[in-house]
Amino acid sequence: MAQRGNLMTVRQDVRVVDATLRDGGLVNDFYFTDDFVNALYRANVQAGVDYMEFGYKASKELFDVSRFGKWKFCDEQSIRAIVGENNSDMKISVMADVDRCDYRTDIIPRDESVIDLVRVATYIHQMPAAIRMIEDAKQKGYEVSCNIMALSKVRESDLKQALEMLGSSCVDVVYLVDSYGNLYPEQIRAFTDLFMEMGERCGKVIGIHAHNNQQLAFANTIEALARGASYLDATMAGMGRGCGNCSMELLLSFLKNPQYNVFPVFRFLQNEMNPLRDSGVQWGYDIPYLMTGKLNQHPSSAIRAMKEGRTDYAQFYTELMDHD
Amino acid sequence: MAQRGNLMTVRQDVRVVDATLRDGGLVNDFYFTDDFVNALYRANVQAGVDYMEFGYKASKELFDVSRFGKWKFCDEQSIRAIVGENNSDMKISVMADVDRCDYRTDIIPRDESVIDLVRVATYIHQMPAAIRMIEDAKQKGYEVSCNIMALSKVRESDLKQALEMLGSSCVDVVYLVDSYGNLYPEQIRAFTDLFMEMGERCGKVIGIHAHNNQQLAFANTIEALARGASYLDATMAGMGRGCGNCSMELLLSFLKNPQYNVFPVFRFLQNEMNPLRDSGVQWGYDIPYLMTGKLNQHPSSAIRAMKEGRTDYAQFYTELMDHD
Repeated sequence: MAQRGNLMTVRQDVRVVDATLRDGGLVNDFYFTDDFVNALYRANVQAGVDYMEFGYKASKELFDVSRFGKWKFCDEQSIRAIVGENNSDMKISVMADVDRCDYRTDIIPRDESVIDLVRVATYIHQMPAAIRMIEDAKQKGYEVSCNIMALSKVRESDLKQALEMLGSSCVDVVYLVDSYGNLYPEQIRAFTDLFMEMGERCGKVIGIHAHNNQQLAFANTIEALARGASYLDATMAGMGRGCGNCSMELLLSFLKNPQYNVFPVFRFLQNEMNPLRDSGVQWGYDIPYLMTGKLNQHPSSAIRAMKEGRTDYAQFYTELMDHD
Repeated sequence: MAQRGNLMTVRQDVRVVDATLRDGGLVNDFYFTDDFVNALYRANVQAGVDYMEFGYKASKELFDVSRFGKWKFCDEQSIRAIVGENNSDMKISVMADVDRCDYRTDIIPRDESVIDLVRVATYIHQMPAAIRMIEDAKQKGYEVSCNIMALSKVRESDLKQALEMLGSSCVDVVYLVDSYGNLYPEQIRAFTDLFMEMGERCGKVIGIHAHNNQQLAFANTIEALARGASYLDATMAGMGRGCGNCSMELLLSFLKNPQYNVFPVFRFLQNEMNPLRDSGVQWGYDIPYLMTGKLNQHPSSAIRAMKEGRTDYAQFYTELMDHD
């Protein structure tokens, strides 16, 4: 597929999704202060961000609410305490993991909610359950995306089947998710082409969520964009699990649509993200993450190594190769 | 121009150039210990790196030798103290800046030197002087490259003329240098295509030296590679001026030729680069570098801001825009 637009053009289909609370919440168990979340909401609105994701709709049966901040659960009243009726141009999203969300009860009809977009996160083998959640959210009136995680581990034949299932479903947006930060730009381009072929045929739009294990989260995001993806995930200072995500400040510096303004993001970084980092919350590119990314492994062992302050890279790499 | 090779293939034309001492020396005024340099030499040889750049051939008329480490000057005996006769498969390079090198006297005939490659670094307006230096080094028997700096500031018409001058010169390698870390992958691809067109017509090979202001140094390096560039600069832990360069550990993790082995690099990072960083030497991606990169400015103001520990990003950005 050819490139769409170039560095001088505006693509009206682009949507920037701030996932700071949701992917960043994986770093600090969702313990953000209300001041932080209020400031993030204001910064996103001022920056022209299209969607702000507040967190997960996690099952309170499966997860102990006393052990996590409220953004793991995203109760309607928690979001409303920040946004009121959300009288802004920015929409609100939440993520719901397949098998970890009591969606029938916890996702209420949209006309009773300030949430606009429900993002269903799934592994490829959970696709039938994902389709059921997508249909449920769509019937309740939401925009719905399906985020296919761990793409670098997926068999191509399974992926093609999953894309056909999504193509004939009521989903609006289908996301490539490089959970392990394993993919190089040329692979992202090939995956985006595959997703776009289905999307154009079936009337779906395509999104990208990247991880920074190999310092490619931003590059992969704008490469997917250039091949036609339009929903672009980013987080403030790249905050996200392990090595983190595509940085909002990089993405908004890149986009040419005057709707976007990176200045409020810079202010937010200095006022909120730096103090958060200084308080001991840890994320961002480092050698152990490069290793799990390169080896196409879940980042959990790298996260553990970082928490333990390990810098015996050679030994750690040897251990990782034993798990391959 | 089409892609060359893919993720399963080996390109025999690839040459990895370690520029840790040279670009990293800009961070610590070239004060590396002999132990560090010895360990770097060994790590590079073990990793299969093709060239190790020891530093600059800077003019001792212009620069006070008492104010810099010896790798700013790269005397023959300094290099020999590390490498002896360099009985390894790895070649040795030095960089010579136009107008800042007494090349007639300081670059000795190759048969008296352990140096293999002289890299002439030039701004576009210095091209006639660069050509003279290239001819001098070539006549003395060296492999010679021309590294065109600040590519993001160069007029296309000037660049085309410079490439023709280089095409009809005796230079072996012509480098794209994104000194300001301003260029996006799609621009790097277009520049590489332009350089490659001349290279194929005139029998020159093409190289890439990237900076990480926008977390694109690695991405831009492998994108240039995919379009035909073969000389690839990298540094340990990305050490280099300001935000630094393409990381050796990322590049060697990417390359598929079994000649390359990233393991000695990981060991070098833990044994040498981490202590160097802990000693207070500072480099790597940060917000002020993103700003100068995005604004296509020399990183000097960002380097100053980092040294002063400034985190008032909004104010700093406003100041930068005033200089635009």
